[in-house]
Amino acid sequence: MPRFSVTYSLSASEATEAREKAFDICVEQTVEFPYDLITERWIRERLVGRIEALRRLAPGRYAAEISYDERVAGGEATQFLNVLFGNTSIKPGVRVERIRPSRGLLRMLPGPRFGVRGLRRLTGVRGRPLLCSALKPMGLSARALAELAYRFALGGIDLIKDDHGLADQRFAPFEERVRRCAEAVRRANRETGGACLYVSNVTAEAAQTLRRARTARLAGAGAVLVSAALTGFATMREVARDDRAGLPVFFHPAFAGSFTAAPASGFSHAALYGQLARLFGADASIFPNFAGRFAFTRAECRSIAEGCRLHMGAVKACFPAPGGGMSFQTVPRLVAFYGVDTVFLIGGGLFRHSADITRGCRDLKEAVAEAAAARRLS
Amino acid sequence: MPRFSVTYSLSASEATEAREKAFDICVEQTVEFPYDLITERWIRERLVGRIEALRRLAPGRYAAEISYDERVAGGEATQFLNVLFGNTSIKPGVRVERIRPSRGLLRMLPGPRFGVRGLRRLTGVRGRPLLCSALKPMGLSARALAELAYRFALGGIDLIKDDHGLADQRFAPFEERVRRCAEAVRRANRETGGACLYVSNVTAEAAQTLRRARTARLAGAGAVLVSAALTGFATMREVARDDRAGLPVFFHPAFAGSFTAAPASGFSHAALYGQLARLFGADASIFPNFAGRFAFTRAECRSIAEGCRLHMGAVKACFPAPGGGMSFQTVPRLVAFYGVDTVFLIGGGLFRHSADITRGCRDLKEAVAEAAAARRLS
Repeated sequence: MPRFSVTYSLSASEATEAREKAFDICVEQTVEFPYDLITERWIRERLVGRIEALRRLAPGRYAAEISYDERVAGGEATQFLNVLFGNTSIKPGVRVERIRPSRGLLRMLPGPRFGVRGLRRLTGVRGRPLLCSALKPMGLSARALAELAYRFALGGIDLIKDDHGLADQRFAPFEERVRRCAEAVRRANRETGGACLYVSNVTAEAAQTLRRARTARLAGAGAVLVSAALTGFATMREVARDDRAGLPVFFHPAFAGSFTAAPASGFSHAALYGQLARLFGADASIFPNFAGRFAFTRAECRSIAEGCRLHMGAVKACFPAPGGGMSFQTVPRLVAFYGVDTVFLIGGGLFRHSADITRGCRDLKEAVAEAAAARRLS
Repeated sequence: MPRFSVTYSLSASEATEAREKAFDICVEQTVEFPYDLITERWIRERLVGRIEALRRLAPGRYAAEISYDERVAGGEATQFLNVLFGNTSIKPGVRVERIRPSRGLLRMLPGPRFGVRGLRRLTGVRGRPLLCSALKPMGLSARALAELAYRFALGGIDLIKDDHGLADQRFAPFEERVRRCAEAVRRANRETGGACLYVSNVTAEAAQTLRRARTARLAGAGAVLVSAALTGFATMREVARDDRAGLPVFFHPAFAGSFTAAPASGFSHAALYGQLARLFGADASIFPNFAGRFAFTRAECRSIAEGCRLHMGAVKACFPAPGGGMSFQTVPRLVAFYGVDTVFLIGGGLFRHSADITRGCRDLKEAVAEAAAARRLS
């Protein structure tokens, strides 16, 4: 039976201790039972995780690659996450660094439906990064948000997303909002000849998320936003795979910060924002840019972009979508840093640039196109 | 409009910086928009979070109580979590310490259906802690797991839970497992005259979790186990509130470890394992005991027990359910530490004690009853 593997980093003073800790993960993540008391040989030899490699990363820190029999995950995305990091998430000093999916795992987690190429096809944008703005502040009516969407789209922005805090509040109920905003973007597209997509936030309780994704598509939204740490990652996967939803999926990191908050626990940035978001269906993975009001480092942001693109069987690459700290001044630097296959999120900066949002969008698009052209020449 | 509030601890060198950071949370968790650019007065004055109190906890560390208008949560559990700790989860050095729900919030998050009293009524256990064992290792057939359940129940254990890694794997498919295990426990109960409950793991993808909870009830399970960090917390709430499921809910911490992994980020142990698990419907909250193979301290474990019991409107108290490190030797100490209203999980220790599981259960129950009696006398 094929095995997928996970590389964990772990704290240990020397190799013997590291091997013990790695073996402990093998047991904890599968049978969770005293190894010496397991009487069935196939359980001991096949179901228990297996140390495939162990190496020292730095003084006191080791990397252990552990493989798991696909049957342990049992064809379920939640149980896959449980094998990946269920109880071990509670152990100190263990971090998920890299996932190496097997073919069977990829049948369950085939990744984004559209990916970089698909999203470029839908937006018609080539040769430059995509630009995404956000509808806010919360408290505006659906009508006012739609008016804002219209002005963004008229300025030629590529993607307009709901702020992730827009749920189904009375001041802008979901159904009215998605209908009005999708219609406003369609109207602007007719005027500009563009193909701006409205990214509707469908994050909601349990089965409601999928229902909203389907409603969003019927209303003419172009993509959906899912805060997977709020809905559960498996719900994002369901939205991505559902043919009646069938829209590109933007992963939002709300409530996910704890996964990367401790340097030696949780997930590496690449594994969470790159691999995991992608395996669970994200066509674009939103994360806080290093220059912004959050605390990700340049190296962490770079690793996320790598995780969005690294080879994983037939899984499509997704867009890294850094947000925060984007201004007209920083555009060239950010385009050079992240590369052309990036979605840049700009929120407050656009409002600050000019009272004329439409003009602000045009200026920004021009600045990004120039930066992308300069990068090609250099 | 009523407001609920959250106390965050945050890192700041002095009070002015602390106030700035607290204000930043007020904005980030609601409008996520440059405050000075908000034109609507009601949004600025009502929707934006409000600093209710600010005090120094220790050098470099402050506590900020921030209140939020109930309308921001919009009556949805996922959006409540987003307001509680959405983007702020990504900011360094901010931790959720305590939640103070408002009455409106408690209508949405009414807490456990059964609570301590309800679960005591169902199990018929008074005056001593409840004992819970686990069906494992993974890899056993449904028939073998049921046989194990029978032997546990015959020994008078109060609760028998699926290991949280038992999902719907081929070696013990969910429906067959729940049917056989529930039947085995019923059979033992008829023989002993006891009221042991089988706690079925229903953790699954999206809407499947609720379906399994309903199936479990129809099959005669006595309670369900939900790993809320895998399913999404709102899914656990749905299971707890659903009348067709309608069974006691055990919260399992798989995949939740990152929330408490960093000392100054994420959640306090009391807020996560106590308040949050309870608000989202847990009748018992499972967490790693300080004496076991995980790393929670005594103080953290004590705070969890407090969080399970502290006053929150009409929300019922739930059982703290420490697991790990429980042996016959440690029973008296643990009963003294956690108190009588506790569910003690014992897994490997029971298998180690004696090859005769039924006898092991009897011995353990006796030891716990003695410890509880000794505590009453002391």
